[in-house]
Amino acid sequence: MAIQVKAYAAQSPTSPLAPMDLTRRELRSNDVEIDILYCGVCHSDLHTARADWGEAFSIYPVVPGHEIVGRVKNIGSQVRQYKIGDLVGVGCMVDSCQSCSPCKHDLEQFCEHGMTATYSSHDRIDGTVTQGGYSTGIVVREEFVLRIPENLDTKAVAPLLCAGITTYSPLRHWNVQPGSKVAVIGLGGLGHMAIKLAKAMGAEVSLFTRSKGKEQDAYALGASHVIYSTDEEAMSSAANQFNLIIDTVPYTHDLNPYIPTLALDGTLVLVGLVGDTEKTISTVPMLFGRRSISASLIGGIKETQEMLDFCGQHNVVPEIEMINMQNINEAYERMLKSDVKYRFVIDMQSLKDE
Amino acid sequence: MAIQVKAYAAQSPTSPLAPMDLTRRELRSNDVEIDILYCGVCHSDLHTARADWGEAFSIYPVVPGHEIVGRVKNIGSQVRQYKIGDLVGVGCMVDSCQSCSPCKHDLEQFCEHGMTATYSSHDRIDGTVTQGGYSTGIVVREEFVLRIPENLDTKAVAPLLCAGITTYSPLRHWNVQPGSKVAVIGLGGLGHMAIKLAKAMGAEVSLFTRSKGKEQDAYALGASHVIYSTDEEAMSSAANQFNLIIDTVPYTHDLNPYIPTLALDGTLVLVGLVGDTEKTISTVPMLFGRRSISASLIGGIKETQEMLDFCGQHNVVPEIEMINMQNINEAYERMLKSDVKYRFVIDMQSLKDE
Repeated sequence: MAIQVKAYAAQSPTSPLAPMDLTRRELRSNDVEIDILYCGVCHSDLHTARADWGEAFSIYPVVPGHEIVGRVKNIGSQVRQYKIGDLVGVGCMVDSCQSCSPCKHDLEQFCEHGMTATYSSHDRIDGTVTQGGYSTGIVVREEFVLRIPENLDTKAVAPLLCAGITTYSPLRHWNVQPGSKVAVIGLGGLGHMAIKLAKAMGAEVSLFTRSKGKEQDAYALGASHVIYSTDEEAMSSAANQFNLIIDTVPYTHDLNPYIPTLALDGTLVLVGLVGDTEKTISTVPMLFGRRSISASLIGGIKETQEMLDFCGQHNVVPEIEMINMQNINEAYERMLKSDVKYRFVIDMQSLKDE
Repeated sequence: MAIQVKAYAAQSPTSPLAPMDLTRRELRSNDVEIDILYCGVCHSDLHTARADWGEAFSIYPVVPGHEIVGRVKNIGSQVRQYKIGDLVGVGCMVDSCQSCSPCKHDLEQFCEHGMTATYSSHDRIDGTVTQGGYSTGIVVREEFVLRIPENLDTKAVAPLLCAGITTYSPLRHWNVQPGSKVAVIGLGGLGHMAIKLAKAMGAEVSLFTRSKGKEQDAYALGASHVIYSTDEEAMSSAANQFNLIIDTVPYTHDLNPYIPTLALDGTLVLVGLVGDTEKTISTVPMLFGRRSISASLIGGIKETQEMLDFCGQHNVVPEIEMINMQNINEAYERMLKSDVKYRFVIDMQSLKDE
């Protein structure tokens, strides 16, 4: 039997998010129905709601939300991993082909046939449009449901499902460990998670920032150094240091000042910028140090579970500000002004009570 | 006793190379004196002779040449690895600090105190200017002398010391092996070596080129496919294929068309371009495949010896055109027009007979 839930949706690129009744599919044998407790607010939500990446990425009405935490309310007949009452999460993906080489290697985000996004995507079986976590409930196939450690602060855990895995994955892929020197560019939702996770992995962490006054927060989050990227002398002093730079800046910027701060064989990994670099790239500091530029996209399901378990063990959760569902449009405006420390999380009780 | 040799030198950025008498230092205890048989002609020779990289890189008079093959003529009292008569080579470096972290890790090309280049550099002990292989003889410390396999065609082996190691090193560093798919951009001195070496390592090799008519040569060198980078349809068909692209193009160009042809986790390595990319870089194909851009600079001494031994085992040598020392200026003009298949090598007997 199909499931009726409440949601908040954008009906067009220019309309604010507003209440909408939504029907979730009848449970398939491998489906899990989740009663949503909290949903994080990601920049991608806003970009999709407003069709900032083009109409192809936004199928209206759009119910955003891919940092979902809740409890299992019901399960399909074949579900084995979860039982009613389990604390679970859903991230940016709800399906993939499960048979191509990337899927077989636990890299569903790079599925050769295209992963199914949590919202504004087409369900692989019935073709219906997927709708996200700004909602009181969701139905997701078992393989894309994550287990949330019970010891973490449940209210704060939601942003791990996107901001957490997006920064955890490159830190792991490029082998950060005790003794590593890691720098993070930008102190927002992604940046503050990158600092916390790199620190928890044992790295010495530095923050690159353009804005003054970030020291106290950066140190509290786990950074040992703050480097102002507008200070040429400070940038020169930082040469040859970092094994890995996690660049979280979501708008176009110049990468050239950061490359010489990489150590021999170091890599700058872009996780925020979807588009073009601001300037052409000089190969000279790359040649004289075999330095690399790369990019990373969320992470696979297995790695996301590993990240959640890691956060459980190290008690790592994002810094959040709770909002009610009814305040989402105001939250978007504040997010555009970077006026959030460091991630909004929607308390879905506010929608249930509506 | 100091050693008198004949050489060819540029006296200024605008003067053609001309004969010059040169004094090589008296042998130190760890020095090897080499009677030069052959010297390859590298684009760097021309750029240094003409101060194309700025006056800082050219100390006049400049005797170029860093693809040197010859026989040991004399040895210092402490030399243990070589004896008189041994067939040896010298590449782009003749010294480094030997104590920093890169040097300790056999990456002398990245010496933190600056490696000593074979020409237009300052000797670490007496401060004299180093002079290269367009000369009848040279004196180099034992640790920077390579052993040349006797089974190879001695006339052809010289370009391995720069073009060979420059392409071998990234192929090894990025783990090319049987089953790997490698593409090479550009078919010149570096490009033709990249094809030969990747093929010898067991890879399936493709050539990207802008110019028609390269098929016959490319296939003869070991490539299985030729892709015209100006053919949009061919470029689209090549998507998601290559584990590694060796980009040998020495002038500014646009990297964006090549990135989508990389496989998941693939890397494009720049070995030819010293300067800026032609255009800004789109992060989108990098994000959706964790693709990287990197750069590589020659290789360490240990790896250069490994490369020479590999070439001995697989009978890999460059395709060359022999010239006399007296024809060097004409050879430079032809090199600028890419009119060489694929590397000039100077027969130093022509200078000895002068």
